Amino acid sequence: MSKNNVKKEYVAFQGNRGAYSEAAAVKYFGEDIDLLPLYSFDDVFEKVNKGEVTSGIVPIENSFTGPIYHNYDLLLENELWICGETHIRINHQLIAHPGVKFEDIKKVYSHPQGISQCQAFLKNNPQVEQIPSYDTAGSVQIIRDNKWMDSAAIASKYAAEFYKMAVLKDGIEDIEQNRTRFLILKKNKDVSEKANKTSIVFSMDNTPGSLFKCLGVFALRDIGLSRIESRPLRGKPWQYFFYIDIEDSIKNERCLKAMDHLQEMTNYFKILGSYPEGLNL
Amino acid sequence: MSKNNVKKEYVAFQGNRGAYSEAAAVKYFGEDIDLLPLYSFDDVFEKVNKGEVTSGIVPIENSFTGPIYHNYDLLLENELWICGETHIRINHQLIAHPGVKFEDIKKVYSHPQGISQCQAFLKNNPQVEQIPSYDTAGSVQIIRDNKWMDSAAIASKYAAEFYKMAVLKDGIEDIEQNRTRFLILKKNKDVSEKANKTSIVFSMDNTPGSLFKCLGVFALRDIGLSRIESRPLRGKPWQYFFYIDIEDSIKNERCLKAMDHLQEMTNYFKILGSYPEGLNL
Repeated sequence: MSKNNVKKEYVAFQGNRGAYSEAAAVKYFGEDIDLLPLYSFDDVFEKVNKGEVTSGIVPIENSFTGPIYHNYDLLLENELWICGETHIRINHQLIAHPGVKFEDIKKVYSHPQGISQCQAFLKNNPQVEQIPSYDTAGSVQIIRDNKWMDSAAIASKYAAEFYKMAVLKDGIEDIEQNRTRFLILKKNKDVSEKANKTSIVFSMDNTPGSLFKCLGVFALRDIGLSRIESRPLRGKPWQYFFYIDIEDSIKNERCLKAMDHLQEMTNYFKILGSYPEGLNL
Repeated sequence: MSKNNVKKEYVAFQGNRGAYSEAAAVKYFGEDIDLLPLYSFDDVFEKVNKGEVTSGIVPIENSFTGPIYHNYDLLLENELWICGETHIRINHQLIAHPGVKFEDIKKVYSHPQGISQCQAFLKNNPQVEQIPSYDTAGSVQIIRDNKWMDSAAIASKYAAEFYKMAVLKDGIEDIEQNRTRFLILKKNKDVSEKANKTSIVFSMDNTPGSLFKCLGVFALRDIGLSRIESRPLRGKPWQYFFYIDIEDSIKNERCLKAMDHLQEMTNYFKILGSYPEGLNL
């Protein structure tokens, strides 16, 4: 197949144009892609499900604030396939109209998570009112469209460039090691030859040693785990689904045997995807 | 000691008077207590630390939306002791001034979690603007104090009664099984004779089988786990602290031996408390 016949990636993401998710999509696929900004993570899953886009990208975990739970739930409810992952550094900028000075800023807009990740900066500037909005990049757009000269947004450098706005302060996040992991979702369950990671979800009756036994299927085969996350079962208080990332590909027999073994002990089991580990640069 | 010499409980909690945390404190201690409403969870930990209150109460987990991460982090950073737990059902009401009709309501105020837990109701009423505020009960107070007749708050029946406001709609939360677990925190590390649960936090090097081995210290002694939660180590991306609730008291030798055994494998270990399981009624 010649390069011209390769279908261009059409990637759905949550947020406005210029969002961190868009930056992650460009990092993963390169710049030659089409992008579909959507209002919610549910919409991203739906568009991929319906085949209206070739893939979706969603954040799953921030190294500082923890998992994005709603996306764990959506992975469970939908039949999409994780075919890749990528990490980006969350590097928050204070963004305003070109020419605006920091002393002019009375209000700061951002997504609640953006606000919570810049608490040290905001506490040192109590004269600035914090206003939660639905999106980081969307806050830049609102300030630009409304010509608000007394307001700034907390968003990425990518968003500042996209909306041709100015960076007033660089790197205002509380900690430098603020990274977000994103998952690439597709409808088809293709597994790359380079896959070395598999994500699964399962639940079992909670008896003494039940989780120990489930993890044993990996430990006894020397398969490492890079992540374990638990989510309450809806409608069954204090019972849990376990989400686990395994350091192996389902193309390997050792991993397949472990999956078979795990199903002997669980009452729910699903493979969410098998993919190459994303470089955490 | 006569009953009159017993020191009255003075309980710190986050939120306005009438908050779910206050309702949980009354459920746990009874009505004959003094209450200290505070702005943040950090403040609650600080007041208990300084001995300015006899105890603090904080939510740790909601059966629907998951853990309250910030309080997990605060348990790690502080040297307080969990001496008890209680659960309450989150039963959201739409609350407005007496005499106001539902058709009059243009705006709904609540904590973002309150808003997120009533999405079905709010989607069915798109004419109502959703306004995030810092507190559920605080939203009732603001509407009362400002005499806003076009606004309603999402909060508990307890808050409606406290502020002498009217319930417009009862039980508007998305699912009935919406419960929150609260922890009772004290400065002294007393363990009740009725304790049957212990909370710990630990971390270890992530090698294949490392979590399996750690859980083995409980499984090999037939000690059940009721909860496992992981939190990223700040400054060390993709390394984790594990928070585990064990179904045993540290007054039992079996449990103490398991703790000793666990410390052989971990590079950080702390007991957060040992207490009687709260009835989940």
